Amino acid sequence: MGLSLYFTIRYGALDAGARGAMSEEGTETLEREDEGYALDARTVAAIRLAVAAGDSARLGELLEPLHPADVADLLEQVDSAHRREILLLGASFLTGDILSEIDESIREEVIEFLPQDVLADAVRDLESDDVVDLLEDLDPPQQEFILDALEDADRVAVERALSYPEFSAGRLMQREVVMAPEHWTVGETIDHLRANKKTLPDQFYHVIVVDPRLRPVAYVTLGKILSTKRSVKLARIQEDSFRTIPVDQAESEVAYAFNQYHLISAPVVDDDGRLVGVITIDDAMTVLDEEHEEDILRLAGVGEGSLSDRVVETTRQRFPWLFVNLITAIIASVVIAQFEAAITQVVALAVLMPIIASMGGNAGTQSLTVAVRALATKDLTGSNVWRVVRREVTVGLINGAIFALVMGAVGLVWFGSIDLGLVIAVAMVLNLAVAALAGILIPVTLDKLGVDPALASGTFVTTVTDVVGFFAFLGLASAVLL
Amino acid sequence: MGLSLYFTIRYGALDAGARGAMSEEGTETLEREDEGYALDARTVAAIRLAVAAGDSARLGELLEPLHPADVADLLEQVDSAHRREILLLGASFLTGDILSEIDESIREEVIEFLPQDVLADAVRDLESDDVVDLLEDLDPPQQEFILDALEDADRVAVERALSYPEFSAGRLMQREVVMAPEHWTVGETIDHLRANKKTLPDQFYHVIVVDPRLRPVAYVTLGKILSTKRSVKLARIQEDSFRTIPVDQAESEVAYAFNQYHLISAPVVDDDGRLVGVITIDDAMTVLDEEHEEDILRLAGVGEGSLSDRVVETTRQRFPWLFVNLITAIIASVVIAQFEAAITQVVALAVLMPIIASMGGNAGTQSLTVAVRALATKDLTGSNVWRVVRREVTVGLINGAIFALVMGAVGLVWFGSIDLGLVIAVAMVLNLAVAALAGILIPVTLDKLGVDPALASGTFVTTVTDVVGFFAFLGLASAVLL
Repeated sequence: MGLSLYFTIRYGALDAGARGAMSEEGTETLEREDEGYALDARTVAAIRLAVAAGDSARLGELLEPLHPADVADLLEQVDSAHRREILLLGASFLTGDILSEIDESIREEVIEFLPQDVLADAVRDLESDDVVDLLEDLDPPQQEFILDALEDADRVAVERALSYPEFSAGRLMQREVVMAPEHWTVGETIDHLRANKKTLPDQFYHVIVVDPRLRPVAYVTLGKILSTKRSVKLARIQEDSFRTIPVDQAESEVAYAFNQYHLISAPVVDDDGRLVGVITIDDAMTVLDEEHEEDILRLAGVGEGSLSDRVVETTRQRFPWLFVNLITAIIASVVIAQFEAAITQVVALAVLMPIIASMGGNAGTQSLTVAVRALATKDLTGSNVWRVVRREVTVGLINGAIFALVMGAVGLVWFGSIDLGLVIAVAMVLNLAVAALAGILIPVTLDKLGVDPALASGTFVTTVTDVVGFFAFLGLASAVLL
Repeated sequence: MGLSLYFTIRYGALDAGARGAMSEEGTETLEREDEGYALDARTVAAIRLAVAAGDSARLGELLEPLHPADVADLLEQVDSAHRREILLLGASFLTGDILSEIDESIREEVIEFLPQDVLADAVRDLESDDVVDLLEDLDPPQQEFILDALEDADRVAVERALSYPEFSAGRLMQREVVMAPEHWTVGETIDHLRANKKTLPDQFYHVIVVDPRLRPVAYVTLGKILSTKRSVKLARIQEDSFRTIPVDQAESEVAYAFNQYHLISAPVVDDDGRLVGVITIDDAMTVLDEEHEEDILRLAGVGEGSLSDRVVETTRQRFPWLFVNLITAIIASVVIAQFEAAITQVVALAVLMPIIASMGGNAGTQSLTVAVRALATKDLTGSNVWRVVRREVTVGLINGAIFALVMGAVGLVWFGSIDLGLVIAVAMVLNLAVAALAGILIPVTLDKLGVDPALASGTFVTTVTDVVGFFAFLGLASAVLL
């Protein structure tokens, strides 16, 4: 096959050696094959050694092949003292790219510690949206210093971006847009790209076609431009169906749209529909990842939280949720206290009651998590919420009935009382059904009220299942056994 | 400004009208601005009406403007009976794109219900990687039927892809690759793209530069090709620093690499380093989203789970985790049973003991979730695990001490016993420290053993905190109070 045939390989053409070692059983071993990425322990150890020896040249050798994201990970993984040593010895290797990859939890610390000329150089390397990202979480004096380090045009751009609300499309977008008027040909477009080479953004995937008032009317993929004759008008190869993003839209909605509609890049428009910037999929992916992190941490009652936070900060983040939990646990205890007399007479109640509460809490968390996730992906909406509630409660009743049988038997065998077995069984069914109901309705209600359901649902749901669980079990027991 | 100046807008150039309505206070209202996306309740209602009236033309009108992903969402949100009605009336609107967007939970049902000619037409529309995605979860007879509907070349391609292990890069990649030999010029490259127009993939962002043995040596962005003179050699504008993906790498690792290193597309290579396909960021984003979903559901003890699963399936998915929880709850009860005598004498113990266990469970879940997330993002590694453990335990001790004071006081005031207050305080500190320790060490250990820490950690951690909580509190109480 000649070289000139190389171009596109339709499926099947170059398959020969590719599958030798592969089979269905291969799946098992895949999981652990992550050595290629991230920092391995050996590199980290070597870096520590170089730092301890004060060997700046060796440190440079070790840092040089690492991706900026990995260098940032390294700085996050070591403790504060080591971090300072690395920064002191390796300041000259600290590029803007590394700075913009560093987690916010240590960003301020790193920036404060850097020599000002190093910081100024690093920041001047960055594109304006990365500078914005870097500045957002800094204190005003640090912001001011970095802004002063920028060239005038860049400074203006960054200040404009910062004037958009936090977490909006306006903060996320690049202002460098590649666009063309409707009447251009492929040839004219290519010539203009060549003429404006210096000011083109690093990455772009579409040319946005605009009308004379700068409103986007279509887009053309670069692949189409490259594979079409120079004389063809853009209008003949453009895609007319596309989505624009309002500049004040929340970044979580932007990420949802990219994920749902498989967008690669999307034009951002102002209130008059005029093009003001462009958002690309890599930025949307970062937002999606952050949203997920937020959901997962909030569900567990961890506010923000990152591994590089210090003890004081972490304690402060965890405290409020534990405090809320304490209050709800005390409420549950007050319920138990109403039945002190029953417990004194039948101590088996004290032994068995945590089982009912725990099962309810677990079943509630299951429903709740499915609901929170479905709300985030817009799969749970007004039109199917009652069907989902019905399904969850039915599932709760069925599982409740099965566990009622099991626990009824355990109660009977362990404590030799049919009545106790019955009480436990009925309380179990009741609590699992209530858990399912609360697990859906509480997050849906919070969402309707504009509160993030991931943030507060957990506490509410377990309060409900604890109170209902203890009350049903101890109340029934008082009525039946005493 | 003339049209020919339109091309790139450096920051600041078109900013005038963009920020009128925006200010910091704008953030609040952003959250609810999601009407633009997804299905609104009105559309769903109108579709139901059209289906109930048997009005196929109206149904077509309503479905036509919707994105395939939204039509798929619609089919997922209605119940099974409605779904059949929509499919019966709207079979002709069902494209391959819609099929490939449909959640696996109802995919089989939809495919079984479709007329075979509709299904065959729909599938022929799709690119080979989408067909693979569609086939993966179907039963063999359904797979066979769809494979038969494909053209020979496509069928071979799909079968080859299916021969790679599930969840590997080989299943994820497109086989359509755009590549060029090292010695080509920009002009030659453009000419060949034009000549091979018909076989180019829909979306591509880079031309991969390969050596004579088809091994990738660099890549060139389409933007660079477009903005460079025809006579320039690719070698002069190529990027030499790039990552290749082994064809048998796990898709979760692929997603991690795209997210960590901001990749847009990456060449996939076989064991000999030869190019066999390409993975693009949109596929990686889908995997990232699925991985997050899996993590969040597994942490809550929900195996797979989707809103469109039926009751029986959902019950079966939830049952095992509730069963495991029952076992651990019974273990905790056995611990309590050892102290029946103490509880009979001091019934306050039964009232207060769930508080200790609940606080421990919550603190443990906090540490655990941070650890699971950090393991997934490779932020928690061998080189910082002991520092993280130290931090978590310190946080546990500090929060434990604060809540010990609070609960000690509550115990004293509520039950009027200094000794009881003391017992509760000591048990609290102990349990919160143990919770922190278990919350980190259990997921790290599971990860080392190759078990997904999201899957099993929760149960282990709450078992530890329940057992330690009850044992510490009741044991101390027996020693001090009796």
